Amino acid sequence: MGFDISVSHVFSPAPALVRILRERHLRPHLLVHDDLMPEFDDVDTSSPNCVVIGDAADKFSYQNLNEAFRVLIGLEKPLLFSLGQGRYYKETDGLKLDVGVFMKALEYACDVQAEVVGKPSADFFQTVLNDMSLQPHEAVMIGDDLLNDVGGAQRCGMKGIQVRTGKYRPSDEKHPSVRADGYLDDLAAAADAILTNHE
Amino acid sequence: MGFDISVSHVFSPAPALVRILRERHLRPHLLVHDDLMPEFDDVDTSSPNCVVIGDAADKFSYQNLNEAFRVLIGLEKPLLFSLGQGRYYKETDGLKLDVGVFMKALEYACDVQAEVVGKPSADFFQTVLNDMSLQPHEAVMIGDDLLNDVGGAQRCGMKGIQVRTGKYRPSDEKHPSVRADGYLDDLAAAADAILTNHE
Repeated sequence: MGFDISVSHVFSPAPALVRILRERHLRPHLLVHDDLMPEFDDVDTSSPNCVVIGDAADKFSYQNLNEAFRVLIGLEKPLLFSLGQGRYYKETDGLKLDVGVFMKALEYACDVQAEVVGKPSADFFQTVLNDMSLQPHEAVMIGDDLLNDVGGAQRCGMKGIQVRTGKYRPSDEKHPSVRADGYLDDLAAAADAILTNHE
Repeated sequence: MGFDISVSHVFSPAPALVRILRERHLRPHLLVHDDLMPEFDDVDTSSPNCVVIGDAADKFSYQNLNEAFRVLIGLEKPLLFSLGQGRYYKETDGLKLDVGVFMKALEYACDVQAEVVGKPSADFFQTVLNDMSLQPHEAVMIGDDLLNDVGGAQRCGMKGIQVRTGKYRPSDEKHPSVRADGYLDDLAAAADAILTNHE
């Protein structure tokens, strides 16, 4: 079973962050994946007064982390934005560290707390719902990440289903604070379940 | 003014960690600087059941961090040792992120707390004092890192002097919990002060 997903159906937190940067007259030093760079084409990045990190994958080199750190520590009040706070994700060649890990690294280095834009912020889920003209109870979040997918969606009033793939770990089903509204084996099973409920 | 320092006068936390690994029958996956690798020559690193990180500098690549993470997350109970928990240090070409930053990164990724061997652990300071056959009140710690140098030494019963170089930041002098026993401009001034007090 495959899924056809067009670009217009993918919601990135980058546009929300670009709005924030504009509103607050911020010029970011960017440490994000090359694929995401075009989102920031119209953003002034001269003499940076904040740092933005996203899932940068191989760009998370020691040198690039040092550069981002030096910008932060050189600011009177270090200001760090993170596009999400995921711990890790799964690719065909294995588990990879996600942006949240490097957010924690820079937070500790500079003794600051990052502003997270994207999952699990309820604002981000609401933006997506608004774009689709849906109320929270009309949508279901399906994800493999208990805290960022399921927990974030639930705080926004949506139901959250966890799939037992990728980041899923059996201990998630006994988590002390976040409880999924349901569990399914994978995304195909989740889609089937939703279609069945609609019949 | 220069300082002659022989290898026998430098204390690394590595031997203390090697002892711990032996005692607890642990086989580490190592992510440490190449210069430190010989310390682990006699340690069994096959089928690792823990991860050891030290200041690895350029070896802190995304790929190497992913490898260390995969070892940790694959263990029934992830076990992470960190040789210190420094935030950053200064080199001639600028500030560099220290091991503590990557410790925090892996802690978050795996939801574990690392065991820190080295500064600021009081055990580590005591080991150094023992080696020099000194009581805590007979020694003075001079360092640029308020929490790891000064705070660690004070918890061991030593006096701690902070020098206003390297990691020193003016805000250190108003730190809520750690207060240095004195401040001096640099290591040369600190050495002068100690020699003068001895006259």
